Amino acid sequence: MTTAEAPPAETRGPVLVVGTGLIGTSVGLGLRRRGVDVLLADASPTALALARDLGAGTVPGDGGSPAPTLVVVAVPPDVTPAVARAHLDRYPEAVVTDVAGVKSPVVAAVAATGAADRFVGGHPMAGRERSGPLAARADLFEARPWVVTAVRDTSATARARVAGLARDLGGVVIDMSPDEHDEAVAVVSHVPQLAASLVAARLRRAGDRAVGLAGQGLRDVTRIAASDPVLWAQVLAGNAGPVRRVLEALRDDLDDLLAALSALDDLPPGGTAPGALGVVAGVVRDGNEGHRLIPGKHGGGHVEYAVVGVLVPDRPGEIARLLTDVHATGVNLEDIRVEHSLGRPTGLVEIAVAPAVRQRLVGVLTDRGWRAVD
Amino acid sequence: MTTAEAPPAETRGPVLVVGTGLIGTSVGLGLRRRGVDVLLADASPTALALARDLGAGTVPGDGGSPAPTLVVVAVPPDVTPAVARAHLDRYPEAVVTDVAGVKSPVVAAVAATGAADRFVGGHPMAGRERSGPLAARADLFEARPWVVTAVRDTSATARARVAGLARDLGGVVIDMSPDEHDEAVAVVSHVPQLAASLVAARLRRAGDRAVGLAGQGLRDVTRIAASDPVLWAQVLAGNAGPVRRVLEALRDDLDDLLAALSALDDLPPGGTAPGALGVVAGVVRDGNEGHRLIPGKHGGGHVEYAVVGVLVPDRPGEIARLLTDVHATGVNLEDIRVEHSLGRPTGLVEIAVAPAVRQRLVGVLTDRGWRAVD
Repeated sequence: MTTAEAPPAETRGPVLVVGTGLIGTSVGLGLRRRGVDVLLADASPTALALARDLGAGTVPGDGGSPAPTLVVVAVPPDVTPAVARAHLDRYPEAVVTDVAGVKSPVVAAVAATGAADRFVGGHPMAGRERSGPLAARADLFEARPWVVTAVRDTSATARARVAGLARDLGGVVIDMSPDEHDEAVAVVSHVPQLAASLVAARLRRAGDRAVGLAGQGLRDVTRIAASDPVLWAQVLAGNAGPVRRVLEALRDDLDDLLAALSALDDLPPGGTAPGALGVVAGVVRDGNEGHRLIPGKHGGGHVEYAVVGVLVPDRPGEIARLLTDVHATGVNLEDIRVEHSLGRPTGLVEIAVAPAVRQRLVGVLTDRGWRAVD
Repeated sequence: MTTAEAPPAETRGPVLVVGTGLIGTSVGLGLRRRGVDVLLADASPTALALARDLGAGTVPGDGGSPAPTLVVVAVPPDVTPAVARAHLDRYPEAVVTDVAGVKSPVVAAVAATGAADRFVGGHPMAGRERSGPLAARADLFEARPWVVTAVRDTSATARARVAGLARDLGGVVIDMSPDEHDEAVAVVSHVPQLAASLVAARLRRAGDRAVGLAGQGLRDVTRIAASDPVLWAQVLAGNAGPVRRVLEALRDDLDDLLAALSALDDLPPGGTAPGALGVVAGVVRDGNEGHRLIPGKHGGGHVEYAVVGVLVPDRPGEIARLLTDVHATGVNLEDIRVEHSLGRPTGLVEIAVAPAVRQRLVGVLTDRGWRAVD
């Protein structure tokens, strides 16, 4: 069934989803919600039955199903090329796409077949720290980029069909070449993952008392260090070239920084290390510049919001009560962050708003008894 | 004036705050709220007048002020040792403390004087991305660690007075030696800062289309890359030894990782790179282990919460309405995160709750018309 507001789906089924993990099951759930017929396949009978029971689609009986118009290969990255080729062979009328996080190996594997016109690589940039069909959700792709990597051999029909699939699932289609995609994810996703892992790994030798001083900065830097090692090893191996190049550039910056820190560390009393402070400040300043390039909300440029801090007792309903009061001021909340407290029952809630309304918000919240400061 | 709930302040004034930037002005504001007399000093007449006008204390007239019982040195880290020594000389009855983010250089500078018994290093672990007196707030230290670094020469009275100051301002006192403190902040604060800066710096060469694929992971890893380069250069120069040692260990891990990625990148078709995948997976797995050591809310061990995602239209009041509904379920909200959307007017709010109540929350929110999924 389609929802009342949504336009008719562009995708004409049946769609065969191969691989019913987080991504495949979410594709099935999203398409079913748009009224598209979905067939499911998975090497694991358990995962397959789970996805079916969750409502992600039906499992074809022996020889009795119609051929799919579109095949979505959503298996682990190391087997994606082989599974994509097998389905191009099996369904000579179907368009085949995949969802692997690295695109060049898949596209290269398909280019060697006679069916490259019917294949379009895809990468929905949505994920969760959890995996498997139970973590799936129909909304997983909503408002996220879905990169579509058509190449010279790709037919216009095939590209349009995959873009339509992405839009039906709420994604924002972004066309890129496989190489452009792989270099982009190396810098915005793969290297940040490795940096978070490397920083978090250092905590293993630090001792409880040191780690007890952890603040929000460390928590933010290392949040994605909780990711799945096996999946990430496959992704990183598949994108070894681009990741290596970004990491080598980072390692060069790190070596310059280490040389400067060594010069500062080895100073005799009263000595100076010409240039060393400038190198250290330069690393942070270069980071400022890079940080400003990250797009803000709604895909616009980087926006500076004003942040209002409010102390909130750690009792049920206090955050809701606070946000109800914020709403009553007529001020639109742009972002919210709850800072964890240490050893006492008070939390700090930081509310980001447009700079022009900051003072008014602080005034009204204070009048209503909150301890608010800007 | 003291607030109705707070116990009497432990600190007996007057307290002299030297340096009216973010930290010094916040100390003044917090002490004034507790009814403690505060005298202010700053090399910048403008910063001094601002702090006074904000209510952080009074500016002593020519020769007419009582001697302080306690001096809080809150000047930039590179001048903290000299300013601390000058005030130990000037006020022979006063206890002197500081707030610099690196403790060994200050303590060493004071040890050479005859007044080491009256000095206690301190580090309130609170900060903001903004600086200066206008960013100050009386609540800045609330529920944050305040490390107190008494050493062998420190008198018990001096240590007690600085611990009392920290408690009066809402801080949680943690006793450490200067070296223990400096090694701890290298691993939980200084190296994460540098990693965030190094990752963000790579974005400068990536191009708009690549950076446009940024997701929440990159945003989290690089949030603190917006920090002040000059202040950080001083902090890092003062802690060059411990930071260098942690960074060298990280660089060794990075070199192993780069060797593995090079082996994978240089593979001939069909070739294998024995052990390389294991090295890559090992980096992520070690990061998992380190991440699990970070304390959760309330200073306890790491707690795994269940996360419920809710799609929220980007209209004023929707988040407040959602949290009012969450409150009505009787479920306590442990954390909340607003994920930014890309090019469309829908946000994803992730609510962390105890795992046992997740399903009930999803059920109730769905009944109330929310698109909630766990």
